[in-house]
Amino acid sequence: MHELRKDPLMNRWVAVMSDSMAPGDYQLPENGTTETECVLCSGREKDTPPEITAVRGYGSRPNEPGWLARVIPSFRPILNVEGDLGRRGVGMYDRMNSVGANEIIIETPEHGKTSAELGFEQMIRIISLYKERIKDLEKDLRLRYIMVYKNSGKEAGALYSHPHSQILATPVIPRRVKEELDGAKRYYSYKDRCIFCDIIREELRTGDRVIYETKKYIAFCPYAQRYSFEFCIMPKRHFCAFQEMTMEEMEDLGLMLSAMMKKLGAILKNPPYNYIIHTAPNMIPRRDHWHTLGEDFHWHIEVMPKLERVSGFEWGSGFYVVTTSPEDAAKYLREA
Amino acid sequence: MHELRKDPLMNRWVAVMSDSMAPGDYQLPENGTTETECVLCSGREKDTPPEITAVRGYGSRPNEPGWLARVIPSFRPILNVEGDLGRRGVGMYDRMNSVGANEIIIETPEHGKTSAELGFEQMIRIISLYKERIKDLEKDLRLRYIMVYKNSGKEAGALYSHPHSQILATPVIPRRVKEELDGAKRYYSYKDRCIFCDIIREELRTGDRVIYETKKYIAFCPYAQRYSFEFCIMPKRHFCAFQEMTMEEMEDLGLMLSAMMKKLGAILKNPPYNYIIHTAPNMIPRRDHWHTLGEDFHWHIEVMPKLERVSGFEWGSGFYVVTTSPEDAAKYLREA
Repeated sequence: MHELRKDPLMNRWVAVMSDSMAPGDYQLPENGTTETECVLCSGREKDTPPEITAVRGYGSRPNEPGWLARVIPSFRPILNVEGDLGRRGVGMYDRMNSVGANEIIIETPEHGKTSAELGFEQMIRIISLYKERIKDLEKDLRLRYIMVYKNSGKEAGALYSHPHSQILATPVIPRRVKEELDGAKRYYSYKDRCIFCDIIREELRTGDRVIYETKKYIAFCPYAQRYSFEFCIMPKRHFCAFQEMTMEEMEDLGLMLSAMMKKLGAILKNPPYNYIIHTAPNMIPRRDHWHTLGEDFHWHIEVMPKLERVSGFEWGSGFYVVTTSPEDAAKYLREA
Repeated sequence: MHELRKDPLMNRWVAVMSDSMAPGDYQLPENGTTETECVLCSGREKDTPPEITAVRGYGSRPNEPGWLARVIPSFRPILNVEGDLGRRGVGMYDRMNSVGANEIIIETPEHGKTSAELGFEQMIRIISLYKERIKDLEKDLRLRYIMVYKNSGKEAGALYSHPHSQILATPVIPRRVKEELDGAKRYYSYKDRCIFCDIIREELRTGDRVIYETKKYIAFCPYAQRYSFEFCIMPKRHFCAFQEMTMEEMEDLGLMLSAMMKKLGAILKNPPYNYIIHTAPNMIPRRDHWHTLGEDFHWHIEVMPKLERVSGFEWGSGFYVVTTSPEDAAKYLREA
């Protein structure tokens, strides 16, 4: 079984795979797979693990063609659904079993579609699957956090060229998420206001980093962005958990996300990118923390095009150099 | 002038360049430059900014051939040596001027040498230049941190194929460095012991992650490593600042670093990699913190081969997946 290990200095958990790769196994990056050999395509349902859920056309049956979007377990899961946490010490270090869930959301049966081409109706189906899976996984009391994210393009770490996103549910709150929660709590305790609500007000006031606004959402380039053309999508209403959005907010998010993907695809020619949904940790196991968390956190989506290789320096130091200012990036995206 | 901006949520500073790149300027990665067009090679001294310091053969003159290793200012500096910090608020955000220093250490006049081929005598010259530059830069009271690092190979973010390392001196303590200092302080206040000294003892006790040991240093794969084949070099003696090593420790580090580079080059065929020297922040402007810092921090070098594309997910979440366990990686490196 894979295991989770904790870095005693940085309080960071990492997953160590039980079947180590040898030095010779690290190959040079391959080219993208073609449609004929893609296991995520329609018609290959028997070659994937059985589906967890799907949005299907009328009359189609599970694990057969006819789906519009589909969720399956990962082919090579990092985290295992079965078993207990088995927290224990090893000398001066700490570890636990690699309990959790890895799922793949296949965003469309059509292999060659880019995110810009998906359209807002399909985007709403994808968002509804995110919501459904979070609502199901948060019932598992062993799980602390459910992360929904997308790697698009090899340069952004994607394993498949077929449009897909991923879910990773972990028994620990990942370090970066914890830091964000702590930062939001610090601001709240100092100002008695949500930092994200303040950022929305400030961005709307100055306007030069705002890209696009819908009835329910705002998209803008963050003041201190790390990656050129990085942007953030935030709901205007204050609420901490993605899965608590209303039907109207879900439809509006489909509109926002598909518009932004079109803009990104237009100015940067469908660049490799990642997006991550930043939502609150699971509430059910820790109902007592609910009230504070509800006030000081505000869910949002971070979209990061990968235009330049980030050096180990930036990684190691946490000091980033941005070659296109957020004001200029917002201008290009706004006008696309 | 470029500016430094602070992320209000994450307390992270980023450098925003004043001359924004347009979307069309982001090119696909180029191939490595060849020797004939390399500006860092011997004979091209007139095409670089005037050298800051160098290790030179007998009778050779500054900015002429005859050097063994050479330090120059960066061609396109992110931080400027002149000017004051100009700290100020902008709406709800914070910024300051981009004051600091960027330098390039040209590690050898020979373009085609790999790190594995430099040899320990040349490695000692390079280390002595690191030490000299840190000792000079720490006199500048505006500077809080001096980071010495190396990006080797395009995949690791290197801008030149000629062997070189870099120095970035910043008016803020980079976020990742601050977290490490905080982590070390937390451990010290709980245990009354240096966490790095404890880690050295634990690694020597179990032995299965130790790669190589010299009289003064130990090299090992960290228990909760983030990247496969990542390793750490630590001095056995407890001291917090790189530049305070003795002559004997400097020679021994040359031996250690050149041996480790040979091992890495042998098992992974000269992979792209980064190394970062983690040393204490500048002492001079904050002499009152000196005593604690001296006790709870312990300088070290982190070496990270870049074998796989790290996805935005790992980046964004701080949750890493390791495909070769540290115990197996140490075994391969030990036996190389």
